[in-house]
Amino acid sequence: MALESTVLTDRESHTWLESFQLAANDVGARSPFSVHKLNLRGGLRDGVDMIEVDNGRFFFAVLPTRGMGIWYAALRQEDKSLVRIGWNSPVKGPVHPQFVSLSEPSGLGWLNGFDELLVRCGLVSNGAPDFDEKGQLLYPLHGHIANRPAHKVEVGYDDAAEELVITGVVDETRFHFAKLRLATTIRTKLGESGFRIHDEITNLSSLPTGIELLYHVNFGPPLLDAGARVVAPIQAVVPRNARAVEGIGQWNHFAAEEPGYSEQVYFAELIGGKEGKTQAMLRNAHGTLGASLHFSPKELPCFTLWKDTAAAADGYVTGLEPGLNFPNPRSYEESQGRVLTLKPGETRSFDVRLEIHGSPAEVEAAEAAIATLQGGSKPRVFEKPQKGWSPAE
Amino acid sequence: MALESTVLTDRESHTWLESFQLAANDVGARSPFSVHKLNLRGGLRDGVDMIEVDNGRFFFAVLPTRGMGIWYAALRQEDKSLVRIGWNSPVKGPVHPQFVSLSEPSGLGWLNGFDELLVRCGLVSNGAPDFDEKGQLLYPLHGHIANRPAHKVEVGYDDAAEELVITGVVDETRFHFAKLRLATTIRTKLGESGFRIHDEITNLSSLPTGIELLYHVNFGPPLLDAGARVVAPIQAVVPRNARAVEGIGQWNHFAAEEPGYSEQVYFAELIGGKEGKTQAMLRNAHGTLGASLHFSPKELPCFTLWKDTAAAADGYVTGLEPGLNFPNPRSYEESQGRVLTLKPGETRSFDVRLEIHGSPAEVEAAEAAIATLQGGSKPRVFEKPQKGWSPAE
Amino acid sequence: MALESTVLTDRESHTWLESFQLAANDVGARSPFSVHKLNLRGGLRDGVDMIEVDNGRFFFAVLPTRGMGIWYAALRQEDKSLVRIGWNSPVKGPVHPQFVSLSEPSGLGWLNGFDELLVRCGLVSNGAPDFDEKGQLLYPLHGHIANRPAHKVEVGYDDAAEELVITGVVDETRFHFAKLRLATTIRTKLGESGFRIHDEITNLSSLPTGIELLYHVNFGPPLLDAGARVVAPIQAVVPRNARAVEGIGQWNHFAAEEPGYSEQVYFAELIGGKEGKTQAMLRNAHGTLGASLHFSPKELPCFTLWKDTAAAADGYVTGLEPGLNFPNPRSYEESQGRVLTLKPGETRSFDVRLEIHGSPAEVEAAEAAIATLQGGSKPRVFEKPQKGWSPAE
Repeated sequence: MALESTVLTDRESHTWLESFQLAANDVGARSPFSVHKLNLRGGLRDGVDMIEVDNGRFFFAVLPTRGMGIWYAALRQEDKSLVRIGWNSPVKGPVHPQFVSLSEPSGLGWLNGFDELLVRCGLVSNGAPDFDEKGQLLYPLHGHIANRPAHKVEVGYDDAAEELVITGVVDETRFHFAKLRLATTIRTKLGESGFRIHDEITNLSSLPTGIELLYHVNFGPPLLDAGARVVAPIQAVVPRNARAVEGIGQWNHFAAEEPGYSEQVYFAELIGGKEGKTQAMLRNAHGTLGASLHFSPKELPCFTLWKDTAAAADGYVTGLEPGLNFPNPRSYEESQGRVLTLKPGETRSFDVRLEIHGSPAEVEAAEAAIATLQGGSKPRVFEKPQKGWSPAE
Repeated sequence: MALESTVLTDRESHTWLESFQLAANDVGARSPFSVHKLNLRGGLRDGVDMIEVDNGRFFFAVLPTRGMGIWYAALRQEDKSLVRIGWNSPVKGPVHPQFVSLSEPSGLGWLNGFDELLVRCGLVSNGAPDFDEKGQLLYPLHGHIANRPAHKVEVGYDDAAEELVITGVVDETRFHFAKLRLATTIRTKLGESGFRIHDEITNLSSLPTGIELLYHVNFGPPLLDAGARVVAPIQAVVPRNARAVEGIGQWNHFAAEEPGYSEQVYFAELIGGKEGKTQAMLRNAHGTLGASLHFSPKELPCFTLWKDTAAAADGYVTGLEPGLNFPNPRSYEESQGRVLTLKPGETRSFDVRLEIHGSPAEVEAAEAAIATLQGGSKPRVFEKPQKGWSPAE
Repeated sequence: MALESTVLTDRESHTWLESFQLAANDVGARSPFSVHKLNLRGGLRDGVDMIEVDNGRFFFAVLPTRGMGIWYAALRQEDKSLVRIGWNSPVKGPVHPQFVSLSEPSGLGWLNGFDELLVRCGLVSNGAPDFDEKGQLLYPLHGHIANRPAHKVEVGYDDAAEELVITGVVDETRFHFAKLRLATTIRTKLGESGFRIHDEITNLSSLPTGIELLYHVNFGPPLLDAGARVVAPIQAVVPRNARAVEGIGQWNHFAAEEPGYSEQVYFAELIGGKEGKTQAMLRNAHGTLGASLHFSPKELPCFTLWKDTAAAADGYVTGLEPGLNFPNPRSYEESQGRVLTLKPGETRSFDVRLEIHGSPAEVEAAEAAIATLQGGSKPRVFEKPQKGWSPAE
């Protein structure tokens, strides 16, 4: 038997399920799992659809209403306790897009809805807001895709692979402007300590269209702590601006909470392995917990590390961000050739896997794998912003 | 027995029906019809109320949540097959106003929700966005009315006339600014191949208020095809700008899909007949299908033809648009005396009828009727923009 | 027995009740009361939660979806007839925040939702819109708090005090910006002709944060009529601008409806009594009906009187507005030291009591109490705007 799935939402057939449940018993799976779709009510979350997925070892919550982002996740440890994966944003979401004013003249409205573990930034643009010479907003911070609801959502169990499969389709379309579609498939094997995202972005227009894409994957405690480190096979790393220059010596190390800490951002080029994949890991100080992103630098050549280790109350957090581009204003990225042009009807695929390492042995193994990717080559760590990497060059 | 109606929504009495159905049997009508109200869920349509009306021959979907616009329609032909009337917008609606950022600094947010057969533009303004000298948005594209929900909605059957009657009341009101009310009555006789809209716009304020109004009626395939034509009794027609000048020789003819086609817009004055009515028809190349708008040039003196025959993927479409004004920026229309001032408490009525011609004979008859309206007078087709018609004069 | 309450909404526990009722019988109260929570549907109110509270003598409607504002109230008179307390806004609400474009470049979107008896303005800012030198909106009119939904709502009956208790918690939070929380408790004793609001505003951030707060309490007929007066113990009163100067001689008197009347605003400092409380009353011409606000000038030192006695159709209304600051643009208030800085984790409390006087005797008693507060000191009424009070100085 192959994949058997249930349609939760479908624009074409006027389908929408208020709630939905699926458990191992329903499909005769050998190990326990559960899927639960609900529509949240009240407060800023009023109307947000959420799909809770538990593969037996790993839990995560998918948000169809927020562009199929992942709200948060949790790892079930051997003693059955849960370790939360994500961060404690001062924004308590999930926030319905109706409360996120992307069109605010400042371009910063996106920050009203920002609390996810994984949020896609794009598709027409991402990065810092971009304005014209009169100061009129052209592109708001991080674009629209995270605040657009999926119009088609399915949940299924793939018997052959023993995998739960969630799919969603989200359009970012404006008449006379870009017509872009994100079709995502999120898979997790029963017992897997993570999930795999396969995204396909299609230009539905008859005209070429430029896209930007960045996976803003965010971690706070317990994964992020004083002494935590990012481990990745580095070709080059460049501070974004003067503020990042201040911390270049410890660019991949994290300090304790610091009230008033102003974000530091580093742009990097990672080294891919034989199959073209790379791996970037955040590990906590004692190496008892880690999270790796697996992806292809060919698909996502621009890696951004966002350090925002302010006080817990303000969001002690870091973002590991594989992207098509760096999160500079779109016009700058365009000038550097990092806005990808999709031909009419063209589809590009992007794969990102999140893997949680729940024990010292697993963290060590990940570190060894990354060391292998690094091989003999020496990371180039630039002391200053570099031409072509950021407007602060 | 006169009109018997059911209140679906009423602000005053806290009435709101989640769903509603009415069929010929319920009222003892002699021929079949059905009315079905539902509240759509999921994606961009989440929360949109829709009333599906089928008079036995003609179907149309009314959108109370989108200012009582008409989403699309369909004609049942003799072989029972349905011909869809409307267009295939790249925006897949109906889009809930919560996802339409009218206040975006660009003034173009309206385009996020544009996919209807008939959408009213107004009431304070319509047309291209208008900005002050600093570039701050004054009036967004096409105004607010299409993204304001009706607060009173009724559906009824008029036994004497054998007509289905849908009424809706929509306010466009801001404290300290305009207080305008649209009260619409949409009627369709059993078996009629179309519908008749009677709109009353009232100035609820104690102060005079300027209004603009335009019926943006949009058609794509199969009505619109290569070789389709607009037939109308023309007093004068003027290209809006340089782009429209390029096509003035074929201003009322449509070509095949053309990727990247940039819109061409023509402003026209139509000739009214004895009862003061005029008729403008779009007919397909082979004259097997047509759609006529019937209205009074006294009520709606400004007729706009919008040609947007880009690729199907980007929306191959034309708009026939009777209006109080031309869709120029409001300040320009005001300078030309085309913003109508309503006195305190004053109501103005507007009637627009859509008639579908489902056979060559019907198309021919419509063409003949329009020829009669044209009579011996020769259309004045201007080669260039004219002073007073558009800012490109 | 102490307070027994029911949670209607709670973000933490995913609680949300579609509807809820509580009556005297349910808790064995000695006199009748009722509480009814419902979720409104249709029109601009679609999705608004409302809690109707009737203590036997006094009714009021709380709006959790609109920052725990009070929509309107009504006093039950001895003959059982109800006197409506509030105003007839041309905006017919309650309006769901999804239809209020706070981020409109003009900064005036707040006016789309303005029809409440009591609406809080704040918390980051209130007052006239504030722009940067390029004309980009910095702070919209009256801030965000009235268009943010409560994420925690409870309703209870306090047996010992014989009081109905409604609590709500509303966050005004943006990542990288202010993290403010409003926790309100609204109490009304059975038979009390009014309610008491106790607000606590907390700075959740680890950084100091500036706040503004103003209670915009609005009255129309029958309380407001030609000959109505504001009675308050005045230290000083200052016209806001040239328009207010025109009416300084009658600053606390109200005339009949006047179409096109342009608002007049007066800023005042009130005198507090022994317990630090003051009282400001609006009484109608014949002294048969009055409404008093009781509050502490230490907590809320800035009192604003807003006169907007335009035609009924445009909203014949006055606002009595105790505030932390005057409703000038935020940058001006900051320059005058009237933006209150909350330390990290700091909470400040504000108490406002609304008391309705339903008989000539009660109105007279209130007037006497205010006269006592005024004592021998003479009000300073400035003929012109004053330095430090408004930008028109």
